[in-house]
Amino acid sequence: MAGEDRFVRRLLAELPPSPAGVRVGPGDDAAVVEVPAGLCAITTDMLVEDVDFLPGWPPEAVGRRAMAVNLSDLAAMGARPQHFLLSIAFPAARGEDYPLSVARGALSRAAPLSAALVGGDLSDAPITMVSITLWGRPEKAPTLRSGARPGDLLFLSGHPGRAAAGLRLARSRAEGRCCAPGLAEEAARELLAAYEDPEPRVALGLLIAGIATAAIDVSDGVGIDAGRIAEASGARAVIERARLPISPALEDFAGREGLDPVALLLSGGDDYELLFSVPPERAREIPREGPGGAPVRQIGRIEAGRGAALREDSAERDIGELGHDHLRAAEAR
Amino acid sequence: MAGEDRFVRRLLAELPPSPAGVRVGPGDDAAVVEVPAGLCAITTDMLVEDVDFLPGWPPEAVGRRAMAVNLSDLAAMGARPQHFLLSIAFPAARGEDYPLSVARGALSRAAPLSAALVGGDLSDAPITMVSITLWGRPEKAPTLRSGARPGDLLFLSGHPGRAAAGLRLARSRAEGRCCAPGLAEEAARELLAAYEDPEPRVALGLLIAGIATAAIDVSDGVGIDAGRIAEASGARAVIERARLPISPALEDFAGREGLDPVALLLSGGDDYELLFSVPPERAREIPREGPGGAPVRQIGRIEAGRGAALREDSAERDIGELGHDHLRAAEAR
Repeated sequence: MAGEDRFVRRLLAELPPSPAGVRVGPGDDAAVVEVPAGLCAITTDMLVEDVDFLPGWPPEAVGRRAMAVNLSDLAAMGARPQHFLLSIAFPAARGEDYPLSVARGALSRAAPLSAALVGGDLSDAPITMVSITLWGRPEKAPTLRSGARPGDLLFLSGHPGRAAAGLRLARSRAEGRCCAPGLAEEAARELLAAYEDPEPRVALGLLIAGIATAAIDVSDGVGIDAGRIAEASGARAVIERARLPISPALEDFAGREGLDPVALLLSGGDDYELLFSVPPERAREIPREGPGGAPVRQIGRIEAGRGAALREDSAERDIGELGHDHLRAAEAR
Repeated sequence: MAGEDRFVRRLLAELPPSPAGVRVGPGDDAAVVEVPAGLCAITTDMLVEDVDFLPGWPPEAVGRRAMAVNLSDLAAMGARPQHFLLSIAFPAARGEDYPLSVARGALSRAAPLSAALVGGDLSDAPITMVSITLWGRPEKAPTLRSGARPGDLLFLSGHPGRAAAGLRLARSRAEGRCCAPGLAEEAARELLAAYEDPEPRVALGLLIAGIATAAIDVSDGVGIDAGRIAEASGARAVIERARLPISPALEDFAGREGLDPVALLLSGGDDYELLFSVPPERAREIPREGPGGAPVRQIGRIEAGRGAALREDSAERDIGELGHDHLRAAEAR
């Protein structure tokens, strides 16, 4: 039996029973699902070893994170996840248990949301890459990036910037370097977890659907992603520095590293929080604590104009270009 | 503007107008499409540099082949392609035109079938990997691997084995080695084209839907893929050696290389032809020449039993394990 067939057989033995609507799951040339009439939201995101996660990560963590970043995209659209495909390219010398562990990690994020694995692909490769395609159903009109209007208030979930700090910590630990000397282990754990195991805001995304006029998941930094909402909406996003939710752990880390925690929040990336705009008359429908305990704060507003800016003491500076750019970062290496 | 946003903008400028039903195309957190009630077939396949294509391949050819292998999976299911997502990981030093050329290649296969690009992902990586997710609608009941019944006749499209010969030719040329000395250039071109630019049998797959009891696209060799139909159907696939469609170019190549053309056909892989079973009373509905000129031949039949076998002069040998195994091949390196 070929390696891929053997893998599918082992995987099937671990999968929960297929939910109603899945006619053909893993093992045929394609999956077949039954869909009711309506809208379907589909997203895909891949993780590349040594780009999106560090070499040596346990495969469960890779799969779990790959699933989380895809769930985050559907969260921003206000869609309920349903099915996903999982593709894993990896050095075959790592053995057949490796992709099975990646799948287990992905399922650990997907199963609580009743998202079913229906297919995928395996390939040999010199490094690991995990690509997931996830689709789901918007329960109201999907929340796009383009609906923000001047006057809307801008909200942000969680504590962005922590993931960027966590990445720096993880890299330095992997290289045996010291980073943020004296940082309490509890704070370090909080920052590392934000990077390694981000919490996708699916329930919050469903809650704000139909209320928010625009939303984006903050994958590349609050600055660049605020700029994306502004650009798509033909408006200006203005964020007030004083309102930014800086976690004490991030503040502590940044102080010890001589970094500005606001810069990490604006340009760090990998946070997978939701940034969204809400008309002022509906702002009271947004809870201060979202489902699952995510804090939600109003950090600014949408104005007429273009671009994204940070306002401090009535001065404004552009932040719409601040953020993690996978491709530019690579060019500069 | 971030590299990925710039890429999306350039890509959108090249895309044909979105077909009806695509509510949100590339550029938001997820694509949104309108679906009618019914079945949806979804497949995903990735190509990895130096595993599924040779380093130095032009990006258009990589994208075109990635699309073809995904189309081939839907062909086997009897589904009409509708939408796809395209993810490209590549060394950023190759520049932003590289993924745009990959996309052009994919579109060159997708557009004639009216399959629309609705989203995807870009990432930096040390090597190129292209992952496509494609979905479509079965027009009749989807053709699975599992429906073959004893008495059914087994049909095969095209001339498998040529792709495996083409890969050998391409590798030797890339390494400056001589291969199959004296082979006519026309024959070499035929074999190379079979490997580099396989023709997905979408129209044939639609034609046999509702007639064929089982189908698979021959991606890993006729032997292993016949074994997969047999295994899924709980039956035995018996192929007659004398009926195998060996192209003169493959025969010539194999002779000059001291290889058995039948071995290349059974275990070569990468052909993307259709292997399918048909009840004898419906065999006359299968044309000898499929849509697009693909020859279709009856090569054997389904019997009671297990496994896949090649019959020659009333002797049978097992072929169900013969074929390309991405993972095993890698382990043996």
